[in-house]
Amino acid sequence: MVPAPDGRVVATTDMLLEGRHFRRDWSSAADIGHKAAARNFADVAAMGAVPTALLVAFAGPGDLPVGWVLELATGIGAECSAVGAKVAGGDTSRAESVLLSITALGDLRGLQPVTRSGARPGDVVAVAGRLGFAAAGLALLGAGADCQDSPVLGGLVDAHRRPRPPYAAGPQAARLGATSMIDVSDGLIADLGHVAEASEVRIELVTGCLMTEPVTLPDALGEAASALGLADWAQWVLTGGDDHALAATFPPSSGLPGGWTEIGKVASGHGVLIDGKMWTGAAGWDHFRP
Amino acid sequence: MVPAPDGRVVATTDMLLEGRHFRRDWSSAADIGHKAAARNFADVAAMGAVPTALLVAFAGPGDLPVGWVLELATGIGAECSAVGAKVAGGDTSRAESVLLSITALGDLRGLQPVTRSGARPGDVVAVAGRLGFAAAGLALLGAGADCQDSPVLGGLVDAHRRPRPPYAAGPQAARLGATSMIDVSDGLIADLGHVAEASEVRIELVTGCLMTEPVTLPDALGEAASALGLADWAQWVLTGGDDHALAATFPPSSGLPGGWTEIGKVASGHGVLIDGKMWTGAAGWDHFRP
Repeated sequence: MVPAPDGRVVATTDMLLEGRHFRRDWSSAADIGHKAAARNFADVAAMGAVPTALLVAFAGPGDLPVGWVLELATGIGAECSAVGAKVAGGDTSRAESVLLSITALGDLRGLQPVTRSGARPGDVVAVAGRLGFAAAGLALLGAGADCQDSPVLGGLVDAHRRPRPPYAAGPQAARLGATSMIDVSDGLIADLGHVAEASEVRIELVTGCLMTEPVTLPDALGEAASALGLADWAQWVLTGGDDHALAATFPPSSGLPGGWTEIGKVASGHGVLIDGKMWTGAAGWDHFRP
Repeated sequence: MVPAPDGRVVATTDMLLEGRHFRRDWSSAADIGHKAAARNFADVAAMGAVPTALLVAFAGPGDLPVGWVLELATGIGAECSAVGAKVAGGDTSRAESVLLSITALGDLRGLQPVTRSGARPGDVVAVAGRLGFAAAGLALLGAGADCQDSPVLGGLVDAHRRPRPPYAAGPQAARLGATSMIDVSDGLIADLGHVAEASEVRIELVTGCLMTEPVTLPDALGEAASALGLADWAQWVLTGGDDHALAATFPPSSGLPGGWTEIGKVASGHGVLIDGKMWTGAAGWDHFRP
């Protein structure tokens, strides 16, 4: 039983499948637990709510070490503690690979839930949290890059393993009048594309605001690109998921809350423009349709 | 966003995996949808709550026909409508077989949630809904029995495909002072074993109350046993899951609500006795430990 003092509850669900969403040789069980919880809590925060509870359905092979499962549970529990939520239910089953399905509940504390559909022309587009770190870390892992000797590269790999969503920024944005909000899980362009579509507006981003601190760390991403022999790291920022930053739109008069950085404007039209042009690269996990 | 007028929300989660919990050649997509929702709503009802919402995480092969998925969604939606709940969220992913993970939310409407741990010596044990039907249906399917010409056998197979939990009996029992409650999903002995363990009591069942209408239909189960060449059908009633009947304990003075049938008593001690003896057969999905 979960308290729902507001009288309304927000809920979100998410499946994480071994081989598709995580690899047991790339992440520890604790990492996977942290990440599974964080993904869902970020989604709750993006509605403007405070996470209250998590339900965990787990399936795995019979020969999975008990220690691995306990470590997974510890990771989930630690991420719950970090946001003040509790594990309120669960289910276990057998499967040939590890399957995790997580549901998170949240309380609105009297605020109206923020959706994807309220952005209006003239609004400011802003982001809280970081972009491109997890994608760079995943690319480093995928290439088998040696990150042992570089705290910078190791930090990017850690960002992939354990995202640190800016949970408090969600309710904060809701209190200060955010007109739409989303957590960046498919990539910034793809997720703002969902906002543009739901709100029937165009979103115009400015790389000069995006490709710099505090939205990202050019030096760190540059070092990762260089280690991988890549000419450019902008794609990680524009299309990388898994950092679980929050992106929101605010009325132009409202002034941005602390922790939020302006990255563009809402205009009439449709789609997402970058410096006035359509992005033609791979747009996160979904294809980009202007 | 789900209304939670009570200010508390109950939540339950459950994974259904193809090949383990259902077979696509034995059940239609609509059947699987109904059953996936019903399992979770029964669990909500067993806490004394009224189902309000469902979240559905789904994964399946890329070559799964779209029509199959739509039919699944229709089955889920129809079971939601039947209880007045709505689908409040979802997630889709790719996997080699069909994976479903369902979370149900419920509202307590001012009642205290009923748990497994409140049974006291002297309480009456009662059941609402039916026992043994789904297990008989599953046995018929497993044996490849021809059920075409028998409405009775066909009805048992239908009971396996689409359980009909007595949803309203849950809050009704809670209002009338049920001291513990559980939905029978692992089998009556296994699930009452959970109650006995959590409540630190012994549960004593009487087959004379169990092996008769309205708890079960001896004629129908007898016909199924006969079609399968089995001498006895009692095991389906005692250990069969998937009918999602509710079992509860009530103070001796309270009088049973309509729809509930007395099947035994709570005593001091531990374990589950049937006619004064320990049951030694297969106790549902779990092994029986007296």
